[in-house]
Amino acid sequence: MNNTYLTRRTIRKYEEREVDSTLLERILTSGTRVSTTGNMQVYSIIVTRDQEMKRRLAPAHFHQPMVTEAPVVLTFCADFNRFNRWCHQREAEPGYDNFLSFMTAAIDALLAAQTVCNAAEEEGLGICYLGTVTYNADKIIEVLKLPRGVVPVASVTMGWPAMVPEQPDRLPLEAVVHHETYRDYTAGMIDDIYRAKEAREDNLKFIAENKKQTLAQVFTDVRYKKSDNEFFSAKYLEVIRRQGFYF
Amino acid sequence: MNNTYLTRRTIRKYEEREVDSTLLERILTSGTRVSTTGNMQVYSIIVTRDQEMKRRLAPAHFHQPMVTEAPVVLTFCADFNRFNRWCHQREAEPGYDNFLSFMTAAIDALLAAQTVCNAAEEEGLGICYLGTVTYNADKIIEVLKLPRGVVPVASVTMGWPAMVPEQPDRLPLEAVVHHETYRDYTAGMIDDIYRAKEAREDNLKFIAENKKQTLAQVFTDVRYKKSDNEFFSAKYLEVIRRQGFYF
Repeated sequence: MNNTYLTRRTIRKYEEREVDSTLLERILTSGTRVSTTGNMQVYSIIVTRDQEMKRRLAPAHFHQPMVTEAPVVLTFCADFNRFNRWCHQREAEPGYDNFLSFMTAAIDALLAAQTVCNAAEEEGLGICYLGTVTYNADKIIEVLKLPRGVVPVASVTMGWPAMVPEQPDRLPLEAVVHHETYRDYTAGMIDDIYRAKEAREDNLKFIAENKKQTLAQVFTDVRYKKSDNEFFSAKYLEVIRRQGFYF
Repeated sequence: MNNTYLTRRTIRKYEEREVDSTLLERILTSGTRVSTTGNMQVYSIIVTRDQEMKRRLAPAHFHQPMVTEAPVVLTFCADFNRFNRWCHQREAEPGYDNFLSFMTAAIDALLAAQTVCNAAEEEGLGICYLGTVTYNADKIIEVLKLPRGVVPVASVTMGWPAMVPEQPDRLPLEAVVHHETYRDYTAGMIDDIYRAKEAREDNLKFIAENKKQTLAQVFTDVRYKKSDNEFFSAKYLEVIRRQGFYF
């Protein structure tokens, strides 16, 4: 197995060097070979390389500097528009205006996204997913002119790494893998699973900086707050419905 | 770039040979290195190797033979249960009982799933995604004993290929990639994009067998019907809500 899977880290700082078009095309082609439901390929990839377009996308991503600094920004979208148009042109009545169809298309888009990222990393490129895509999908739709039937589900910045940070921690494998049935976590297991993460210097600093008692509170009270989650939930649901997936 | 991305195909027939546990562990570890929102890792992977458990999962997957024939079945789940338990144990009040949190966890699970598949294929293993996972999530939850906070989003069978089928067709790259903004499809573009697919011998046979006029009608009237989509939409939405993601 190539070692990239195990040694990778997210890259947020890029060299000014461009990503060659032939290389990018090969990487995107890798993405098109992934499994999709019924081989329908109900996704689209929007490539942003133009500086002005990146500048226009930046607010949707809360002005994270990667968006304007990376040579390439990719927006992966659930897309039933193309398939629906084909159906209409072929005397077929598409029934893909529902939640299941949104999920089908979102899954297609996400599997393609991750293979594109794996292929890019194997070429020495670095990538960063932007969680903001689901927060401000409405703005992204406007900037990228996404028609009805199309919803962004993943945004990725890509470029040549200018700085390779330390590899971040992960929970032990046995924390996320279950054998045969889900064995629910006891209090002792939770302590064991999170012990190393909680003891990290950077996380202790993080707790202090945020004036919190526990690392978990940094997540619930600062980084991913209930009120924000509920606000962006309502917004994303509205976008999905407005783009033609009713439920 | 390793060629697996470009030469891969879905494998539905497996040798009886087992997948070595050390190899499987390395493959799953690859999955744990993927990006996740805030490094929260809000997903779980259920490994099914026991024949009796595969037999019990089979009805949820409409008895597709891969489920009982593959040495390994993997169920990737959106999982906020572990994280919520940690929060509760650390005087933190989790606010992850909403649609955005479900999407966050589903995205985590799907990116991990696809890297596991890529890593497996690079080792010579074959995989097959089962779309049935979103249809019958309720049955899967029951068999795998998934608690509140956990929703299956991808099921994959894995094993050593017993037969390598022809590589299936894909739409041309330019059909799914847009530059700078989405350029919507004209009637002529739709004809061009789908021409090769529609001309394939196997698809012509498929139309005839199903007594349809066009390939699109095979999708809308036979394979992915509006009534089925709506039925399974309602069911999956109910499961997501029942597992604790309200909206």
